[in-house]
Amino acid sequence: MSVLIKDVLLDGEETSIYVEENTIRGIGSDAEADRTVDGRGKAAIPGMVNTHTHAAMTLFRGYADDLRLQEWLQEHIWPAEAKLTEEDVYWGTRLACLEMVKTGTTCFNDMYWHLKGAVKAVEDSGIRGVLNSVFIDKFNKEDAKKQRKQAEKEMKDVKACSRVTLALGPHAIYTVTEESLQWAREYSDKHDVLVHFHLSETAKEVEDCKEETGMRPVEYLDSIGFLGPNLVCAHCVWLDDREIRLMGESGVKVSHCPTSNMKLSVGEALDYEKLKHAGVCVSLGTDGCASNNTLDMFESMKNAALLQKIWYGDPTRLPAGEAFRMGTSEGAKALKLDTGAIEEGRLADIVLVDLKRPELTPHHNLVSDLVYSASGGCVDTVICDGEVIMENGRVDGEEEVMEKAEEIVGDLFSR
Amino acid sequence: MSVLIKDVLLDGEETSIYVEENTIRGIGSDAEADRTVDGRGKAAIPGMVNTHTHAAMTLFRGYADDLRLQEWLQEHIWPAEAKLTEEDVYWGTRLACLEMVKTGTTCFNDMYWHLKGAVKAVEDSGIRGVLNSVFIDKFNKEDAKKQRKQAEKEMKDVKACSRVTLALGPHAIYTVTEESLQWAREYSDKHDVLVHFHLSETAKEVEDCKEETGMRPVEYLDSIGFLGPNLVCAHCVWLDDREIRLMGESGVKVSHCPTSNMKLSVGEALDYEKLKHAGVCVSLGTDGCASNNTLDMFESMKNAALLQKIWYGDPTRLPAGEAFRMGTSEGAKALKLDTGAIEEGRLADIVLVDLKRPELTPHHNLVSDLVYSASGGCVDTVICDGEVIMENGRVDGEEEVMEKAEEIVGDLFSR
Repeated sequence: MSVLIKDVLLDGEETSIYVEENTIRGIGSDAEADRTVDGRGKAAIPGMVNTHTHAAMTLFRGYADDLRLQEWLQEHIWPAEAKLTEEDVYWGTRLACLEMVKTGTTCFNDMYWHLKGAVKAVEDSGIRGVLNSVFIDKFNKEDAKKQRKQAEKEMKDVKACSRVTLALGPHAIYTVTEESLQWAREYSDKHDVLVHFHLSETAKEVEDCKEETGMRPVEYLDSIGFLGPNLVCAHCVWLDDREIRLMGESGVKVSHCPTSNMKLSVGEALDYEKLKHAGVCVSLGTDGCASNNTLDMFESMKNAALLQKIWYGDPTRLPAGEAFRMGTSEGAKALKLDTGAIEEGRLADIVLVDLKRPELTPHHNLVSDLVYSASGGCVDTVICDGEVIMENGRVDGEEEVMEKAEEIVGDLFSR
Repeated sequence: MSVLIKDVLLDGEETSIYVEENTIRGIGSDAEADRTVDGRGKAAIPGMVNTHTHAAMTLFRGYADDLRLQEWLQEHIWPAEAKLTEEDVYWGTRLACLEMVKTGTTCFNDMYWHLKGAVKAVEDSGIRGVLNSVFIDKFNKEDAKKQRKQAEKEMKDVKACSRVTLALGPHAIYTVTEESLQWAREYSDKHDVLVHFHLSETAKEVEDCKEETGMRPVEYLDSIGFLGPNLVCAHCVWLDDREIRLMGESGVKVSHCPTSNMKLSVGEALDYEKLKHAGVCVSLGTDGCASNNTLDMFESMKNAALLQKIWYGDPTRLPAGEAFRMGTSEGAKALKLDTGAIEEGRLADIVLVDLKRPELTPHHNLVSDLVYSASGGCVDTVICDGEVIMENGRVDGEEEVMEKAEEIVGDLFSR
């Protein structure tokens, strides 16, 4: 299968992009292809990479907002989540994948229960996913042991297409035993798999850790050998200078979730400048859409820039070009994917943005427009792994996914 | 002319809305109408009201971002603005109106040069506008006198359709002489017209005012008799408790511009809770889209909520319902319009939101979804002053508006 995107704007020039199987083979090529996509009036950008999600939580979108974190989790989210089945997770993840595709995201890093449901949803959606085997043991040694066994089994048994990568998802220092964290690190080193983790989202997490271990979270994780370049940590808003240095030295990747951090009011903003200077790769996540409430990475790019500017009192902070890289190339780097740029030899994850829209008129600066003016609604065409999975704003079967998700929710809350 | 919106969701119930001429005449009516709009799968909400814009600045969208305010204004925006003609303002405002209609805004309060260009653009767009005669004299007494004369002439001479209201737009305390401010107050009282003003956007404005007058801005404005219920003030981020009390007592209206405040990094966030407790009407503005960079009020509702939560460390601040009212009924109140709610006898400014979208699925809570999940792209149909000005996401002649705006920009920067 081959695809030729004709007459499309790429880095300011009109050109064509030739895709063979799942790879970009020619920029400016006029090769014959099995399928031609009309790129006129559209800009080609790399598919966006969302490095922190809980995809199936689309089912809880709008279910419980404007609450304090603990009340939100304990009284609303956790009781609802406890009822979820693998089929629920399948349809919740399908809905998430649909929303991501429609808003230009071609890969996401997902921590959620019922891994098999998520894997099947990603396969059926045509998107790319890094899907985690989750650990939350709340320091119960038996549960911890069971989860390590389950993770080991899942990592071996779950077979999936080339668009799916399996990874480990130990939840956080306040929910997972040290033994399991160390096991995850060893497993990750041995099998070269990613580890996805929540880190320093709230002041309470830091205070509790100091009380328990005498160290701040990153110092504690360093002391048990948990840090490393395979580790992707979401949030990272409460870090001191020493922790930022440790993260830079160990090659840990950060997934910044500006919208979730603002909505749940985590009390601090990620210090992008310090992380950048320490050489830390900072990418973007939406977080689960129950705390956002969308999966639109255009919005996250803009909110990342807005939050840095207002919080640190400097409108030159996180300029558009850097926010755009956070949403694309830095995400690909974090997830070790050969995507995040449109270049020959890269995986063909390509998004076409419709430029004939009032909010993208006039055309002074495309990157500024993408970050500050565009929303997911500007996405016209999406190619993932060489397949056209959306064209002219339409995804095959989208109505069924929405209807089934709606049905699942009706059923879930009547159980 | 009459319109019947059939089978539409209104406040949680499926019903119909009958519109005759420019007024809502029947909720649940099955009257015969000249035109029927299919409301199935859509929710009816009041058209949004944007209470602070500089509409023609769409022409500078993306032209100069990520800069400090003074550099942005002095080196980029002001030199470009100096070249604008009435025709440029016409097309810039047309582009703004198109973007507003497509994103569900039916009225805006606009401060910009070349009033006649803006008036014609609003007439031709089918939207509703409060359009200002601007004053910026930089304390040159001759200029100030000229501008008062011009304002008086414009308020008398400019004839416009019923959708246009003329108002006075003295820019700010740091650009307009006291004499002109007092003149504006007297004129406003005598002719019952609105006054649109920038207030306490930056710390520098407050410091300069204290140095010059020995008073903070609101105290100074109170001392010269400028405050009153006809005054709509944009920004209002640097206020102390006494100023907030004065604003409540005098009935001054506030236009909160969260996205612009974040992007330009004004260093403080509007204190919504204190303003609310003082009884101040707080509505929402996008500001000019060169400092935003969109006119999408859905985004402004969400950003208002996010900013309150993160800045004041409380996720329960500005819940969805209040953010939604800021974007609709409070805006109507600020501009003294009989819109902002869908009720019999009100002006027919109605927006239909398409609910069959992934980001609005499932349907736990419509108001949460409108504020936290929707974007302007969810708008399907717009009725303003009883006329259907957008249906199925399409506005007549939208391509021409975008092309002409693009042409104007090309020409402007080659002059």
